[in-house]
Amino acid sequence: MREPLPSIDKLKEIARPKVRPLIWCSENKILKVLDQRKLPFEEEYYNAATVEDIYKCIREMYVRGAPAIGICASYGMAIAAYDALKRGLDIEKTLEHLRRCGQYIASARPTAVNLEWAVKHMLNVAETLVSEGKVRNTRELAESLEREAINVQEEEFEIELKIGLNGLEKLRECSSVMTQCNAGGLAGAGIGTALAPMKVAKYLGMDIKVYVPETRPWLQGARLTVYELHVEGIPYVLIADTAVGYVMYRGMVEAVIVGADRILRDGHVINKIGTFKEAVIAHELGIPFYVAAPKTTFDMERKIEEVKIEERDPDEVRKIRGVLITLPDAPVYNPVFDITPPKYVTAIITEYGNIHPPYIKNIPRTLQQA
Amino acid sequence: MREPLPSIDKLKEIARPKVRPLIWCSENKILKVLDQRKLPFEEEYYNAATVEDIYKCIREMYVRGAPAIGICASYGMAIAAYDALKRGLDIEKTLEHLRRCGQYIASARPTAVNLEWAVKHMLNVAETLVSEGKVRNTRELAESLEREAINVQEEEFEIELKIGLNGLEKLRECSSVMTQCNAGGLAGAGIGTALAPMKVAKYLGMDIKVYVPETRPWLQGARLTVYELHVEGIPYVLIADTAVGYVMYRGMVEAVIVGADRILRDGHVINKIGTFKEAVIAHELGIPFYVAAPKTTFDMERKIEEVKIEERDPDEVRKIRGVLITLPDAPVYNPVFDITPPKYVTAIITEYGNIHPPYIKNIPRTLQQA
Repeated sequence: MREPLPSIDKLKEIARPKVRPLIWCSENKILKVLDQRKLPFEEEYYNAATVEDIYKCIREMYVRGAPAIGICASYGMAIAAYDALKRGLDIEKTLEHLRRCGQYIASARPTAVNLEWAVKHMLNVAETLVSEGKVRNTRELAESLEREAINVQEEEFEIELKIGLNGLEKLRECSSVMTQCNAGGLAGAGIGTALAPMKVAKYLGMDIKVYVPETRPWLQGARLTVYELHVEGIPYVLIADTAVGYVMYRGMVEAVIVGADRILRDGHVINKIGTFKEAVIAHELGIPFYVAAPKTTFDMERKIEEVKIEERDPDEVRKIRGVLITLPDAPVYNPVFDITPPKYVTAIITEYGNIHPPYIKNIPRTLQQA
Repeated sequence: MREPLPSIDKLKEIARPKVRPLIWCSENKILKVLDQRKLPFEEEYYNAATVEDIYKCIREMYVRGAPAIGICASYGMAIAAYDALKRGLDIEKTLEHLRRCGQYIASARPTAVNLEWAVKHMLNVAETLVSEGKVRNTRELAESLEREAINVQEEEFEIELKIGLNGLEKLRECSSVMTQCNAGGLAGAGIGTALAPMKVAKYLGMDIKVYVPETRPWLQGARLTVYELHVEGIPYVLIADTAVGYVMYRGMVEAVIVGADRILRDGHVINKIGTFKEAVIAHELGIPFYVAAPKTTFDMERKIEEVKIEERDPDEVRKIRGVLITLPDAPVYNPVFDITPPKYVTAIITEYGNIHPPYIKNIPRTLQQA
C-alpha cells in the first residue's frame, strides 16, 4: 500500500532547496543574485545593492525565468524604498521615487510579463499603504515593501512545491524520467516546475533518476538542469539531444515531464524547441508525457493560429560557447520554441491540481476554480 | 509528364563530384587524402606516398567511412608494390612484401570490415596475376595493382551513382528533404548514399534543398554534410538536433533520407544515434522515411537481439570541440547508434533497386538477384 504524500504545510517545513537563484539579506538590504550565465562552471553571486544593480542583473541575464525575474524586480522596489530612506525623502517624494525606479526596472527586459507585473504590484502595494494611512513614514513604507517582496518569493515557492506534490502523484511509481531544457528552480524560487516532483521526491527520501537532454542550441539541459540536479543530489544522466528517442526505445524512462512557456486553452503546449519530438516518441511508445506549469503560463485568449514562434540568431546554432562548429556562413533555421498538440499530452500538472483531456473543457474548469 | 531519369552510363559522363576524399596521382604514385578531421574549417590534403602514410591516414581518421577506407587501403597496396619495384625486389619477394604490408595496413583499424576486404582482395589479385603468369615482372605487377585500385574506386563510384538514381526516383517530386549525420561522398567515392539523390539531382539541373541536423555528439551534420552540400552547391539549412520535429511539424520537408551502418534481414536499421526519432516523427506525420545503403551494409545473419549498440566516451557529450558544456564529471549515457524498426521505414534504396515492405521477404529477394 502506498503512503499518502504529505500536506503542503508539512512539505514547506522540510523543503530546503539548495538551488538559490536569489537570496535576500535583510541585515544590509542586499539581494544576492546567482550569476546564471556562468553556471555550471562557476557558482558566483552578485551583490545587488542598488536599483542600478537590479536593472543590470535583469538586463544582462544574470537572472532568467519569468518568476525569478518577477521576484528580483520586487526586491528591486524594496531597495528603491530603502534608497529613498537613506536620502531622507518624505513619504510622498518616496512614492515619486518608486514610480521612477519602477519604470527604470521594468525597461530592463520589455517583453517580460512577470517583470511588469511585479513592478506594478509593488507600486500598488506602496500607494495603497500610503493612501490608507497604514504607514506613517518612509522607514515603515520601506519595511512593508521589503516584507511584500519576501511574500512574493514565498508565494512562488509555495506554488512550485504544490506543482511538485501534484507531479509526484503521477511520478511516484517511476524510477526514472526524462525532461527537456531547464524548467527548474533557477527560473523561480528554487524548486521549479518540471523538476519540482523529483525535488519533492528527494525531500521525502525517494529517488527518481532524471535523463537530461543537453538541449541545443543554448544547452540549458547540460548547463542548468545538470547543475540543479547535481546541487540537490538527485541522480541524473546527461544525454545528447540525438539520444532522446533511443533512451525511450530501450525503456530507460517511465515518463517524460517538461515545463511550458505558454499553454493554450485547448491544450496546445508551446515550449522549448525539442519538446514536440519527445512528446511524439513518448506517445508512439506508450510513455506518459506530462507538462508542469503554474496558472500564469496559461493563455486563455490566443488561438494556435495566432502563436508566433520566435526565431533567433543563426550564430546560436553555428557556435557552441563561442566555438564555431560549421561553416561561418552556413544557412540556419533556429526556432526557439515548438508546438505540441494536445493529443500528445497525458496530463498538465498545475498548483491547482492535474488537468486531463479533454483540455478544452478541463483547463477552463480547473483554472476557474482557482 | 515527368521525364525519365538518365541511364547510369549517361549519368557517369556528367557526374563530376566536387567532394573528393581520395585523389590518386598516377604520375608520382601518391594518394592525396583529404584530412576530414579538419573539415569544414580547413580543406587540406595529405600526400600519402608510403605504406606508413596510408596506415597513418586510416588509423588517425584522416579518412573515414567503410568504402573510403577500403579504397584508401587498395591504393595502399599499389603503393606497396611500387615500393617493391623501387627496392628492386623480384616478383616472389614482392608478393611477400605485399603480404607484410597488407597485414600492417589491415591492423590500422581492426574492426573495419572494408579494410580487411580491400587488403585481401588486392592480395588475391596479385597472387592470381602471378600464378597465372599474367605479369612478367614487378613493374607489371605494380601497374596491374594500380589499375585494380582505380577499379575499386570506380566501382564504388558507380554504386553510389546507382543509389543516387534509385533514390531520385523517390525524391524527384520533393523540393526539400531532411537527412541525419553524414551519409555522404566523404565516406566513399564522392557521391555518398543518403546524399546521393540530391547530388544526382544537382547534376541533372534540379534543386532539392536539404535540412541538416547538426548530429551531436560528433556534429557530422554541421561539419561534414554542410561541407559537402556547400561544395556541391546544393541548397541546405543547418538546424539544431532539437528542431528536427518542428521542421517536420511545419511541413518544411517532404521526405527524410538517411544512411545505415547495418540493415538486418527483417528491415531493422542500425544507424547513427538520432535516426530513430526522425523515423518515428516522420511516421506519425505521414512523411516518407527512406534508408539508402549499398548491398555491403546488409547483415543477413544477425538477429535484432544480437545487435550490440556501441557506447562511447562520456567526454564526447560533455565537450564540444574540446570546450566543456557541463560539469566535468556529469554522468553521461552516450550510445553511438540507434535501432529503427522496419515499420517506420518506407523503402530501402540500394544499387540494385528500391526495396519495399514486407522486408523479410523483399530484402533477400532483391539481394539474391544481385
